[in-house]
Amino acid sequence: MASFSSYIFLIILFIISVGASKIKSIYLPGTYQSSLLVKKHDEKTKIPFKTHYFPQILDHFTFLPRSSKVFYQKYLINDQYWHKEGGGPIFVYTGNEGNIDWFAVNTGFMIDIAPKFNALLVFIEHRFYGDSMPFGNNSYKSAKTLGYLNSQQALANYAVLIRSLKQNLSSDSSPVVVFGGSYGGMLAAWFRLKYPHIAIGAVASSAPILQFDKITPWSSFYDAVSQDFKDASLNCYKVIKGSWAELDALSTHDDGLIEVSKLFRTCKALHSVYSARDWLWEAFVYTAMVNYPTEANFMMPLPAYPVEEMCKIIDGLPKGASKLSKAFAAASLYYNYTQTEKCFNLEGGTDSHGLHGWDWQACTEMVMPMTCSNESMFPLSSFSYKEFTQDCKKQFGVKPRPHWITTEFGGYRIEQVLKRFGSNMIFSNGMQDPWSRGGVLKNISSSIVALITQKGAHHVDFRSETKNDPDWLIMQRKQEVAIIEKWLQEYYKDLKQN
Amino acid sequence: MASFSSYIFLIILFIISVGASKIKSIYLPGTYQSSLLVKKHDEKTKIPFKTHYFPQILDHFTFLPRSSKVFYQKYLINDQYWHKEGGGPIFVYTGNEGNIDWFAVNTGFMIDIAPKFNALLVFIEHRFYGDSMPFGNNSYKSAKTLGYLNSQQALANYAVLIRSLKQNLSSDSSPVVVFGGSYGGMLAAWFRLKYPHIAIGAVASSAPILQFDKITPWSSFYDAVSQDFKDASLNCYKVIKGSWAELDALSTHDDGLIEVSKLFRTCKALHSVYSARDWLWEAFVYTAMVNYPTEANFMMPLPAYPVEEMCKIIDGLPKGASKLSKAFAAASLYYNYTQTEKCFNLEGGTDSHGLHGWDWQACTEMVMPMTCSNESMFPLSSFSYKEFTQDCKKQFGVKPRPHWITTEFGGYRIEQVLKRFGSNMIFSNGMQDPWSRGGVLKNISSSIVALITQKGAHHVDFRSETKNDPDWLIMQRKQEVAIIEKWLQEYYKDLKQN
Repeated sequence: MASFSSYIFLIILFIISVGASKIKSIYLPGTYQSSLLVKKHDEKTKIPFKTHYFPQILDHFTFLPRSSKVFYQKYLINDQYWHKEGGGPIFVYTGNEGNIDWFAVNTGFMIDIAPKFNALLVFIEHRFYGDSMPFGNNSYKSAKTLGYLNSQQALANYAVLIRSLKQNLSSDSSPVVVFGGSYGGMLAAWFRLKYPHIAIGAVASSAPILQFDKITPWSSFYDAVSQDFKDASLNCYKVIKGSWAELDALSTHDDGLIEVSKLFRTCKALHSVYSARDWLWEAFVYTAMVNYPTEANFMMPLPAYPVEEMCKIIDGLPKGASKLSKAFAAASLYYNYTQTEKCFNLEGGTDSHGLHGWDWQACTEMVMPMTCSNESMFPLSSFSYKEFTQDCKKQFGVKPRPHWITTEFGGYRIEQVLKRFGSNMIFSNGMQDPWSRGGVLKNISSSIVALITQKGAHHVDFRSETKNDPDWLIMQRKQEVAIIEKWLQEYYKDLKQN
Repeated sequence: MASFSSYIFLIILFIISVGASKIKSIYLPGTYQSSLLVKKHDEKTKIPFKTHYFPQILDHFTFLPRSSKVFYQKYLINDQYWHKEGGGPIFVYTGNEGNIDWFAVNTGFMIDIAPKFNALLVFIEHRFYGDSMPFGNNSYKSAKTLGYLNSQQALANYAVLIRSLKQNLSSDSSPVVVFGGSYGGMLAAWFRLKYPHIAIGAVASSAPILQFDKITPWSSFYDAVSQDFKDASLNCYKVIKGSWAELDALSTHDDGLIEVSKLFRTCKALHSVYSARDWLWEAFVYTAMVNYPTEANFMMPLPAYPVEEMCKIIDGLPKGASKLSKAFAAASLYYNYTQTEKCFNLEGGTDSHGLHGWDWQACTEMVMPMTCSNESMFPLSSFSYKEFTQDCKKQFGVKPRPHWITTEFGGYRIEQVLKRFGSNMIFSNGMQDPWSRGGVLKNISSSIVALITQKGAHHVDFRSETKNDPDWLIMQRKQEVAIIEKWLQEYYKDLKQN
């Protein structure tokens, strides 16, 4: 279960990355992941939850005739640990861009701590993902339906659903704590900020709420990926950095495609050299994101600290070998750790709603500009709002609002703002995860805190505990539990006083 | 100017009252006020502001094709006191349901204190009021256009406009403080809660943010009006309370209409006895709301503490006179303090967009249930969500969302929530004002404070200072200035540190 846990969160933020990258023409692959999403979606996974559907309103922020249309939003409940009579807390996962079952299965942390807190667990699916389709099969048809997919409507859904649920359960005095990882973590943090009367606190794991506008340097994401490799081995970093030029050179050869197909041991002859570039790119980015301290089986099985392992492969190859062949060998660890693949499929795969949904979000409000600097191990690349806008208009007929997220949720000078406003938020980040660079990395106040682990990766704290967890991870989770306990104690004390 | 100031805020909250009352069949008159609104709207008033128009987005919370339509939102600027180079503050009035010129003219407090703070003054008009019509003359045509009129879209407008304005003025470090009275005060308070990254504090005068759902007892508004009269004279209260039955009795007489027309010295014969009831009702409610400590000319000229004066009239009439004739004499003070009216027009008047707009808001999100209890001096009346919904469906084809405001902005257990979240808010209320009962009347934390005056009425603190202002009013304004100063000092200190 633990390995699947890492897999899913990987996927989720991958979607963010792909969504942004596709538009800004940094070569990150999308199609391959999306087909995996579909595959996983079909898998039947047993989860200790009951499925419910809530009649949700389509548009919370207008009163147009269509706004009151009802759709059914999926949510999951586990009440086996809940002490309702004692006003036991309600832990709500604010679902991100995917089927909510995945998040329920893969947020083992919440299940692990529920007994200690006598908590009710609720996982709410994000509109336009999984089964929560406002227009059924037509939900992704055009901007006329997709227009209702955005984070504010999602947050309002959560607010309405939680309020109704508490009313139906007659548990008005039960405090709510929201949890989320990745985009779900952004939603959890924003939910606490916008709906403090509904949630007494938020645990936001690997939530890059500062990856917008000009708050975080645009090159930081890929610089961070590169830093992971540089930290493992300077030679390794240099080899990967040099491999792209070799690939480019091959692309101008007459027999370039054949050579690359051969070198990359493809099952079928390649149609484009770019497929090889994407394939490598994906391997390095993902391995950095999930540079977990234990062996894990996420998208692909990987050893503990897989970045180090990749670099060991590169450093171990003969000096005379080409950089590209070394990069291929390293990437093969990602695609073939189990040594079962005879050849690789670098092209193919189908699109899925999950991915398409994030593409839409990336083209409307979730505009996260990213570039590759000269310091990174990736080919230099820039970002242009103008080109991005043109791409989005072409793809969806929609114009991005790149400054809207920071207008609606803030982000600039966040320390100064939240030092004097708000409370009860945990921002946890693992510094191996390139998304950490867009996260909150410093304590803001006594109750808005950043929990950083140098060796942690993408929301590793939200995974189920395993017997191999290192001390720093055990400690991080303990800290989170202690902080949540404090929030609850304070809440119950205040409640008594009133 | 001072008297006009009181007049306009009176009007504004009157609209709230009328909006709600029309729907819930408490007999508060509407048509008469709306014609006055139109009259004042035509008046050319000189104000020390320059008018601007901002290209505003229609729908901030969807990405439907129509959402990005641009309309022109009016705002006013006074920069004569602003020390821009020193990072002087920006004081923004969050416009309520009317032409923004009125608010600019009638919020003399902001003009009075601007020099002391070297502040820029900005007054922003609320969408669908004044000149800020998203669909021009068709804006009020149907739910398809009016659907975009609500408080969240208005707040988002303010956020987008302020951010753009600061950028254009290159005044990124200038702190913003929002001000508002009545519904505008509700918006100011909510703006601070939802956009703390844009406004460092809010001064919300007479803002009944708790007049929703079941937070405040539904009878409290009319009980408070009645208390004002009871405090002035128990007999006075009893006379008014008894007058309605006498009017009802007349309505069953064959010659009832003629008798009432005669008694009320109407210019034309009445078509309905209810017109007399509305006429009395309006006089008593309004006089309570603007029970100001100084002579003032608002809707009608009135003496200082007009409730006391009304009761003196009632108590001074012979014992044998009917209660209805006494109530009429008291109400005449309101309509004819200058003794210039030979007869009264109890019926007639036209609707205006201003009023219509609030009716829409009252039928969608601003659902403020009100009843008249047996303790009040008004006829017993109840409120039914079912009937209210039917009326709104009939009038606008829209279904109210009566629990939405408390879901979106909170309100229940506000002390407990905001004690641990948020900062820098002033809630000022005068206890003579019946709207105070739906306001925040207790300090919540060291920086979320309630400034209460026992003798104050509807946002009297926001009126221009006059030489006759009583000490408690001078003191209240001084307190507000001192608190704002503290917010600013803290902000500049934090800014330096970062």
